[in-house]
Amino acid sequence: MKLFSFAGSLRLGSYNKMFAREALRLALESGVEGEFADMRDYRMPPYDADLETSSGIPESTRKLGQKIRTADALIIATPENNGSISGTLKNIVDWLSREQPVSLRGKHLLLLAASTGALGGVRGLWHARVPFEVLGMHVFPDMKGLPNAANAFNELGRLRDEQTLSQVKATVTAFVAHAAKG
Amino acid sequence: MKLFSFAGSLRLGSYNKMFAREALRLALESGVEGEFADMRDYRMPPYDADLETSSGIPESTRKLGQKIRTADALIIATPENNGSISGTLKNIVDWLSREQPVSLRGKHLLLLAASTGALGGVRGLWHARVPFEVLGMHVFPDMKGLPNAANAFNELGRLRDEQTLSQVKATVTAFVAHAAKG
Amino acid sequence: MKLFSFAGSLRLGSYNKMFAREALRLALESGVEGEFADMRDYRMPPYDADLETSSGIPESTRKLGQKIRTADALIIATPENNGSISGTLKNIVDWLSREQPVSLRGKHLLLLAASTGALGGVRGLWHARVPFEVLGMHVFPDMKGLPNAANAFNELGRLRDEQTLSQVKATVTAFVAHAAKG
Amino acid sequence: MKLFSFAGSLRLGSYNKMFAREALRLALESGVEGEFADMRDYRMPPYDADLETSSGIPESTRKLGQKIRTADALIIATPENNGSISGTLKNIVDWLSREQPVSLRGKHLLLLAASTGALGGVRGLWHARVPFEVLGMHVFPDMKGLPNAANAFNELGRLRDEQTLSQVKATVTAFVAHAAKG
Repeated sequence: MKLFSFAGSLRLGSYNKMFAREALRLALESGVEGEFADMRDYRMPPYDADLETSSGIPESTRKLGQKIRTADALIIATPENNGSISGTLKNIVDWLSREQPVSLRGKHLLLLAASTGALGGVRGLWHARVPFEVLGMHVFPDMKGLPNAANAFNELGRLRDEQTLSQVKATVTAFVAHAAKG
Repeated sequence: MKLFSFAGSLRLGSYNKMFAREALRLALESGVEGEFADMRDYRMPPYDADLETSSGIPESTRKLGQKIRTADALIIATPENNGSISGTLKNIVDWLSREQPVSLRGKHLLLLAASTGALGGVRGLWHARVPFEVLGMHVFPDMKGLPNAANAFNELGRLRDEQTLSQVKATVTAFVAHAAKG
Repeated sequence: MKLFSFAGSLRLGSYNKMFAREALRLALESGVEGEFADMRDYRMPPYDADLETSSGIPESTRKLGQKIRTADALIIATPENNGSISGTLKNIVDWLSREQPVSLRGKHLLLLAASTGALGGVRGLWHARVPFEVLGMHVFPDMKGLPNAANAFNELGRLRDEQTLSQVKATVTAFVAHAAKG
Repeated sequence: MKLFSFAGSLRLGSYNKMFAREALRLALESGVEGEFADMRDYRMPPYDADLETSSGIPESTRKLGQKIRTADALIIATPENNGSISGTLKNIVDWLSREQPVSLRGKHLLLLAASTGALGGVRGLWHARVPFEVLGMHVFPDMKGLPNAANAFNELGRLRDEQTLSQVKATVTAFVAHAAKG
């Protein structure tokens, strides 16, 4: 079983990248393989059907789709921007949906969110499920919003708080066990 | 009273642009002022907080925010992409939300969707309300999804079907009357 | 201007009733009229179209519809049950929607939620907007979730915490000012 | 593998009951076991925490929970009432969620909707996913809305239209194959 993980944020020091990486690290402890990708390495312009007609699907989209195809399950962390999925992530999803067959279809997905606020991006998580489900992904019912993300990680990018760490570990482990069934 | 209208699509021949324009035309018949803008003239990169830190909010975002500020109410047509708001539109909203004060806050909004399918983008409309409401917009309860959009407009960009035309006209008129109250 | 307020809970000591009452009290301070109703006095069976055919719309629904008709704006507090609107409230809405014309249509609505948890029912609030908006209500963009509700009220049913009180007061005042425009 | 199927409607001639039954019949063709239940045989009052305190969880809820526990996967058809899950179904879910452990948790669910309108209840389906997902169900990404339901079934309760029949069969078969993995 192979995981693929990324965050719907471009910022170098993104807490969502840290959360996606940390969740992947915890998943790997259970013996699965996995890889993290930084969306700075897969930049795409805002979706434009004319651009698609003239130049095709971007190379970055195709490379990302290929990564997704080789994975059995995904862990994606999304910023909550204006109560919903980040535009940056939604744009990635829209481009990915233009490939046939769609790489995301049929894959398992664990959605996470990190937020500097007190609610941990929980509104955004529920909004973010929809496009992935429309594309045929099995979005794991449990999600995990991480509040106060600015203080949540140590210098190695690990979750500081023991209780949070064990909750995230439990969610990730349950997700991996479920996804492993196929 | 002044309206401002645009579509969450970049495609030159976008049916959502046609729908946003046509709705605006019908609104102007009731004597209000209004303007349509093409998002090709307000291109923004995918939101990136590092870019914002280094270069500030894009000039295109500031110009769009200024247009919104001078309007009392907005008519926005969004493609339904993967059952939800288009990534292109969500990205515009995310950038707009970085200006303080947020130009969208307190404005009235009529949401429309045009789709080449049979459902008229109705799923996307309900998903698209959320970020606008989170930003404090008064999103009009009635929305209008236009199915089979590829055949809906004549060469002047007017709705061909009399019944559809009168329904859209009724929705637009009710919206303008409500928004006019302030 | 006249307000009408109730909660989507039947429990005698419901925190949502306390929150709906307290929000109404704060609204009345700005000089508007208003009334609170306890849904224990408007009990309805689960919606059943056969029951409607044989016995008509329940008397309790008609009485509630009449109260709503005489109001300009509503304040409704909903428990978050399973991440969404309470079934009890949804059932009331479904019955109310059977009257023609629908009493709710065109009214302004402020949605509140009280919860004994830390998130204040914020997921439920966003889910609860939808049926009211479908029915043509102008749901105020700002909502207010009250966390830790078990300790939030004093023996007179007033909010203990000064900051929370002033936030709720600000939301209620903004809502009343907006609804007063018609 | 064992299926359990019901509809979120009480009406004797409910199209959603017919749709839930028909989907179950199509599933049984692939050799799984299954049972349909009519919610008229599991009537519950609107959720009331005081009633729960004084009388406990209703016998009907406990019986329904037991049925769910013995099944591996569920097929539920929900009317779209006011753009969302029926209050009758939401009330059933709220009562079911009071049992510990919750019978629904971890089960696979296929959501269906039948509607006499042209959109087939598609808005309601997306709204109805949320409480089930919050309770830890694996809601199948594909759903099926049946438009024009008043003419969709023959006197044996079978879908008349060949194309619709084969689409529903395909969805049900894919669901059963997925749920069978555990």
